[in-house]
Amino acid sequence: MSMCDRRNLSMVMDLYELTMSNGYFLDSDPDDVATFDVFFRRIPDNGGYAIFAGLEQIVEYIEDMHFEDDDIEYLGSLGMFDPGFLEFLRGYRFKGSVSAFDEGTVIFPGEPVITVTAPLIDAQIVETAILAQFNHQSLIATKASRIVRAAKGRAVSDFGARRAHNMDAAVYGARAAYIGGVAGTATVLSGKMFGIPISGTMAHSWVMYHESEYESFAAYARIYPDDTVLLIDTYDVLKSGTPNAIRCAKEVLGPMGKRLKGVRLDSGDLAYLTKEVRKMLDAADMEDCRIIASNSLDEYSISSIIDQGGCIDAFGVGERLITSKSDPVFGGVYKISAIEKGGVTIPKIKVSEAVEKITNPGRKMVYRIYDSTGHATSDLITHEDEEVDLSGPYDVIDTHRPWRKVDLSGHTARPLLKPIIVNGTRVSPQRSLTEIRDYVRMQLRDEIWEEEQRFENPHIHHMDMSVSYYEDKMELLSRCQSNR
Amino acid sequence: MSMCDRRNLSMVMDLYELTMSNGYFLDSDPDDVATFDVFFRRIPDNGGYAIFAGLEQIVEYIEDMHFEDDDIEYLGSLGMFDPGFLEFLRGYRFKGSVSAFDEGTVIFPGEPVITVTAPLIDAQIVETAILAQFNHQSLIATKASRIVRAAKGRAVSDFGARRAHNMDAAVYGARAAYIGGVAGTATVLSGKMFGIPISGTMAHSWVMYHESEYESFAAYARIYPDDTVLLIDTYDVLKSGTPNAIRCAKEVLGPMGKRLKGVRLDSGDLAYLTKEVRKMLDAADMEDCRIIASNSLDEYSISSIIDQGGCIDAFGVGERLITSKSDPVFGGVYKISAIEKGGVTIPKIKVSEAVEKITNPGRKMVYRIYDSTGHATSDLITHEDEEVDLSGPYDVIDTHRPWRKVDLSGHTARPLLKPIIVNGTRVSPQRSLTEIRDYVRMQLRDEIWEEEQRFENPHIHHMDMSVSYYEDKMELLSRCQSNR
Repeated sequence: MSMCDRRNLSMVMDLYELTMSNGYFLDSDPDDVATFDVFFRRIPDNGGYAIFAGLEQIVEYIEDMHFEDDDIEYLGSLGMFDPGFLEFLRGYRFKGSVSAFDEGTVIFPGEPVITVTAPLIDAQIVETAILAQFNHQSLIATKASRIVRAAKGRAVSDFGARRAHNMDAAVYGARAAYIGGVAGTATVLSGKMFGIPISGTMAHSWVMYHESEYESFAAYARIYPDDTVLLIDTYDVLKSGTPNAIRCAKEVLGPMGKRLKGVRLDSGDLAYLTKEVRKMLDAADMEDCRIIASNSLDEYSISSIIDQGGCIDAFGVGERLITSKSDPVFGGVYKISAIEKGGVTIPKIKVSEAVEKITNPGRKMVYRIYDSTGHATSDLITHEDEEVDLSGPYDVIDTHRPWRKVDLSGHTARPLLKPIIVNGTRVSPQRSLTEIRDYVRMQLRDEIWEEEQRFENPHIHHMDMSVSYYEDKMELLSRCQSNR
Repeated sequence: MSMCDRRNLSMVMDLYELTMSNGYFLDSDPDDVATFDVFFRRIPDNGGYAIFAGLEQIVEYIEDMHFEDDDIEYLGSLGMFDPGFLEFLRGYRFKGSVSAFDEGTVIFPGEPVITVTAPLIDAQIVETAILAQFNHQSLIATKASRIVRAAKGRAVSDFGARRAHNMDAAVYGARAAYIGGVAGTATVLSGKMFGIPISGTMAHSWVMYHESEYESFAAYARIYPDDTVLLIDTYDVLKSGTPNAIRCAKEVLGPMGKRLKGVRLDSGDLAYLTKEVRKMLDAADMEDCRIIASNSLDEYSISSIIDQGGCIDAFGVGERLITSKSDPVFGGVYKISAIEKGGVTIPKIKVSEAVEKITNPGRKMVYRIYDSTGHATSDLITHEDEEVDLSGPYDVIDTHRPWRKVDLSGHTARPLLKPIIVNGTRVSPQRSLTEIRDYVRMQLRDEIWEEEQRFENPHIHHMDMSVSYYEDKMELLSRCQSNR
């Protein structure tokens, strides 16, 4: 039995989801339906785009959601819940509907990436887990995408498990990093669960266990002659590690007709050392021997090493990817946007003195708008059921400059929100991780402007609203304010 | 069945643990025993101390460690492992020994907090999971301790699940935060698994669902009259939220003979708003109504709010605690320190040009040294079997100033490393979370100097070595260098 058999992940929720649900159970119409939107407000690292990840685990969580006898017993012991509510939980299954962007979609602040429309309790109770999964995986996928971009075509692998925020962060972090573009991971379970390519060779302990550095290299090469990568920084990279690696290539691999695949450095001045190592390898006719570097790398240090002419063929990135160290929070939120009572939908808006904290009321649709070159020029928020016809003049409001109307005629609109779960039943098939990853790559290559992908002062993606949606939002806002 | 039944956490490891183990299986003496030390090099947030957490989960992981048929099948499919090694894994159980500090011990850089002495493969294979657990929980316990310190006696609760790096980070993060001193968590599963007090009331969605803010307060108060805490910032804290809360106290709770327990603010200028809210509550004879604040809080913002005279009785801390946002990596490492071959122990040292990266060789004991007032004056590293008698003159080397000898006579020495698992069997009983938490509090109150706990330029805890240990280390170091 694995240790995690003992826990039911459905119970990973904030207590207030249950205090509110108990309240709704006692005090509200069970036919009331609520719509909540998941969106985020700020792109990590002051970037210009983010990658949506975690949808598959969110769907699994929702489909699996249930309460076991010992969960009910524990909740009962808190002395705060109605017995009828606890019985309701005992037989609980999610009955609502979920729409979402395809996993891997490039996303921007303010747009609803996931919407949940469900009976009040169903809609409330899934909040915490949806956010934890959305926030974690989108954070790591976004960071990975930045690091892969910095590596300019060189392979990047996730080496971060040991610095991850516990087991799930390692396992699902590797999944998210793969979506974001890394070539593989060192984490074995992620390889097994998701089919991600895994890699790994030796630690300093291997080198230190053996009689000498050379003997440790020779032992490794004899066991893995087809895939020998040697860690050359245990003692001294230039005086010991590299000469021993070259000797191993000549004396152990050569006679077997094999070549040394690579050497790895995990410390020191990577820009300087890799240039020297490259010279030594090339002088020994080992131009095909790759140099792999790891050691507190992220998009900034990788850019700098490449700028300095460091000779690195592949990067292993650890703590700064798996924790998104420079900005470890993806601030996704879950906000109510509508209540349906007796068949009538009432849009809800959260007013705030901070403009960016005002929510978008009502049930909505989101489109990505493309110009004739296939580039995404803006995203467009409309009412859920509004027709969008760009064959003729079609004015929208640019929400960052709301005094401006923009005509989208001649553009094309691709709907982003798609039904995933309808009345408790999954309607969209599981997509393979490769498909999700390829989708990310395609968007960043073909659709998203380079100017939105750069690290320094990226262009801010346009967020438009249909005139009808914008006017209804403004009217609701002014009504709200005059009511208080 | 919960979704996590599908995975075996034993497989959360870096692939190189297995490539090395396969190598050891094929090529080394199965009676060789290795000793590895877990230690860390740098205290997060430039602090003066850290809190050791995660030991219980490390022991569970090691005791549970096993490989299931589909794990073996997956590893076989990689085409890199010897069939005999895969059979070895099929029946694998950990046969080694683990010593560790008590969970909750205040720890300092450079000292071995956990040591594993085990057959080579056993010692190697547990690396990744030990580090992930140690690093995650110690990080959060340390951050929590800082935040609790900043709150100066006011209660702090963990509200971070939604921003945690996935489910485990929420669940075990809450555990670590509790060890570090928070009063409770909002995460239900953490309450159930660990007996941590849980709390939670309402979200903005509760307020927005109801016809009006007042009606939402009244509905909540009717359901939870003994524990009513109202969220007052949905519309306008001073013009709407606070007056409605006061009215609810008078019109709903008053007639039931109840008092309003508290109000909560989750946005805005907390220093200013809470002072105004306090005045309004006091003017309504509600001096006993507590003010709870949340919104991107950590030790720095809490200190600042308190300095400004903010009237806050309890803090809910979210993302900045559960991700340790200002410094999200606890850099614990796992380094080989000795090999035992044919009954002879060979100390191993990792040389590095960076002095702080040189490891401490051999099997060691760590003592905490106390002066006559009961304050911890230093930690002392010795050989494992060395006698430490402080009744007479006893010189040690201060490793931060190695030219200095210090006489510890008259002090007392408490051994910190204790056997946890001996030859695969757990020998130390599980300690309750309350016991661990109380132990943390006792140390910070009675043993650890205030000067080491402050945020700005804390005093650096002395790390001493016995003269014999220090001299042996230096000799090994010079031998290593002349060999290369």
